[in-house]
Amino acid sequence: MMANLLVAQSGGPTAAINATICGIVKRAMTSTRIDTIYGAQNGIKGVLDGRLIDIGKPLSSPEALEALARTPAAALGSCRLKMKSPEQDPASYERIIEVFRQFGIEYFVYVGGNDSMDTVLKLSQYVAQKGLNIRVMGAPKTIDNDLCATDHTPGFGSAAKYIATTFAEIKRDVMVYDYEAVTIVEVMGRNAGWLTAASSLARLSVLGAPNLIYLPEHPFDEEQFLRDIQQAHKTDKALLIAVSEGVKDAQGNYVGESSKSGAVDAFGHKYLEGVAGYLEKLVKAKLGCKARGITLNLMQRCASHLASATDIAESQMLGQTALDRALDGVSGQMAAIERLSSNPYTVRYTSVPIELAANEEKTIPASMIKNGNDVTEEMLTYLKPLVQGEVPVVWSNGVPAHFQF
Amino acid sequence: MMANLLVAQSGGPTAAINATICGIVKRAMTSTRIDTIYGAQNGIKGVLDGRLIDIGKPLSSPEALEALARTPAAALGSCRLKMKSPEQDPASYERIIEVFRQFGIEYFVYVGGNDSMDTVLKLSQYVAQKGLNIRVMGAPKTIDNDLCATDHTPGFGSAAKYIATTFAEIKRDVMVYDYEAVTIVEVMGRNAGWLTAASSLARLSVLGAPNLIYLPEHPFDEEQFLRDIQQAHKTDKALLIAVSEGVKDAQGNYVGESSKSGAVDAFGHKYLEGVAGYLEKLVKAKLGCKARGITLNLMQRCASHLASATDIAESQMLGQTALDRALDGVSGQMAAIERLSSNPYTVRYTSVPIELAANEEKTIPASMIKNGNDVTEEMLTYLKPLVQGEVPVVWSNGVPAHFQF
Repeated sequence: MMANLLVAQSGGPTAAINATICGIVKRAMTSTRIDTIYGAQNGIKGVLDGRLIDIGKPLSSPEALEALARTPAAALGSCRLKMKSPEQDPASYERIIEVFRQFGIEYFVYVGGNDSMDTVLKLSQYVAQKGLNIRVMGAPKTIDNDLCATDHTPGFGSAAKYIATTFAEIKRDVMVYDYEAVTIVEVMGRNAGWLTAASSLARLSVLGAPNLIYLPEHPFDEEQFLRDIQQAHKTDKALLIAVSEGVKDAQGNYVGESSKSGAVDAFGHKYLEGVAGYLEKLVKAKLGCKARGITLNLMQRCASHLASATDIAESQMLGQTALDRALDGVSGQMAAIERLSSNPYTVRYTSVPIELAANEEKTIPASMIKNGNDVTEEMLTYLKPLVQGEVPVVWSNGVPAHFQF
Repeated sequence: MMANLLVAQSGGPTAAINATICGIVKRAMTSTRIDTIYGAQNGIKGVLDGRLIDIGKPLSSPEALEALARTPAAALGSCRLKMKSPEQDPASYERIIEVFRQFGIEYFVYVGGNDSMDTVLKLSQYVAQKGLNIRVMGAPKTIDNDLCATDHTPGFGSAAKYIATTFAEIKRDVMVYDYEAVTIVEVMGRNAGWLTAASSLARLSVLGAPNLIYLPEHPFDEEQFLRDIQQAHKTDKALLIAVSEGVKDAQGNYVGESSKSGAVDAFGHKYLEGVAGYLEKLVKAKLGCKARGITLNLMQRCASHLASATDIAESQMLGQTALDRALDGVSGQMAAIERLSSNPYTVRYTSVPIELAANEEKTIPASMIKNGNDVTEEMLTYLKPLVQGEVPVVWSNGVPAHFQF
């Protein structure tokens, strides 16, 4: 009995989410039970719109699959849509099933983060309740590494490698002058500091890259921050500081939020600035030394030219795992990585009930945080394997060649 | 007769300035007339302080020289010191000559941009007037590509390759959603838009990367900018815009400067923001669509993992040329590149009187600017050869290995 497969991508882009599609497609190619491989454009939104394209044909060569795995962001497009429950919004679920019937879909793999796993949870429950012959599986993806029930998430290792490399290079840059200065680099992560912690890997290349690390899991104290800088300046003039975009004070307010001036910009809106910009001003005002705030912005999640080979390989394996389980009749689960050992680094691919992953955030445990301004050796042991290996860029005219449907 | 050589680096870091040191050192290694190779720490400031170190010894292996060429920023440290004339400040010149005598320096090569070439000009004239047996030469360096009398400058090609790659990746990122949005990326360059223009190379990888390009050489009009966006949104929802940090209105005011609210921050200082942040607010307020401002900041000048092989090779050759001329008895000149042909790309290494390079800025000619919001084919023909080829990164523990004295 042949049936069709549907894959879709959701949430923020990463350097690894396309590799997961590769893993799913490769697994499907050798199955006797899958006929056409469809991709929905813009995630579940595209399913609701009936915007499905045949992706098996353009991906039927090894070269195309490899090119896709090297391409950043989401080749199928993405969406940010948190679905209501079937009770609140039955029409959307009926519409999805209608589209599934129209395209003969019996297997659906959704690649994404927290919100996407919530969609997998709700849709798999709906399908089970209706007694439909459809398997709904999740494949994890988020640079934030904040999904539970998996050792880490695809996209994180590549973002971590970008961050480590960039901190090493910025340290080289700022250390050329012989006066006291502070460079504050803001890294993504509202509640989980994994990406900011990854900056510590730059120390494997150059001392003091970064000198101090501030995570959202530990209350941020401005006075202590200034004392930390004065202490660190005793041995290093060119301080480099990693700070998570989500650092909060002891009352849970985002840093800078409570002390904002309330001033409005030329358009009458309140000034809203990132933590790097705020701390730059704080250092200049309180310590009187040169300070610069840098925001890594989108570059940290789409820099596939710095992808981690470990990350890209695992992302493919998790896609393969998700479809493998679906072919075994499993539904309502998420593919996951279990770490067996850090040194040597060995893993096992498994799947977990989607309830364990959806809507839960994994933050950094206290044992990995040092003095509120650094990470421990345990964190480095955890991080190191995830950035190993490189994915050769294919260059065309001096710029990277990407895949496009 | 043996004599000693002194090299020093000045101005902002680049991915190529260390390669120029390599070229100088390699040329010195086969000369029968040079004994010890010294490097001054922190440029001419280190000369004044007598902080000279023997760099010939740590660079006496091919491996060390290769590692140095792959390392970003300035391995000898840098400074930003514009020297006064010998008439205004005779003591500094007397001090430099004293240090030269102390260390037996007869050849001095200074690697840097506009201000550094001004130092070469003043010092070479001083030395000539005093009839001293010292050759003072300049080797160009600036990511801004704004030095006259040379087709382009070391550091520019690598920064251009970083910018092209990053624009291609950001375009992949922003195009995943199916709603109208504008992403504005601010690129370095106060008066010369060469780096911003280099974003156009990303189109060799992906359409619309960027959609619009605004250079400081052309007056910026906010109303026209908003009309450009509305026009471009008709065919592309996910607009990517390159804007130089130095764009100015018809009156010569930096964009956003004249329309600032005058508001003060929590520390009582006026809000000063970059053009990307200002234009993000302008687009949100006037067009009501999603907008994001991104600043490439230091990353664009220190990303040696994305260095252009052409740039690194030419940087070495210019260092070699500078010393070669000095050994021939030339003083008061700057090594330069003359382009013979763009396709195939061929060049000739030469040297020019330092007066032609010092204190002059080379901006983009009108023939390379299209409609005030793009570049012409002539610009692409100029840029393409400069980003060709890659410099293999040497990885250690998943992060790039750098050289350190």
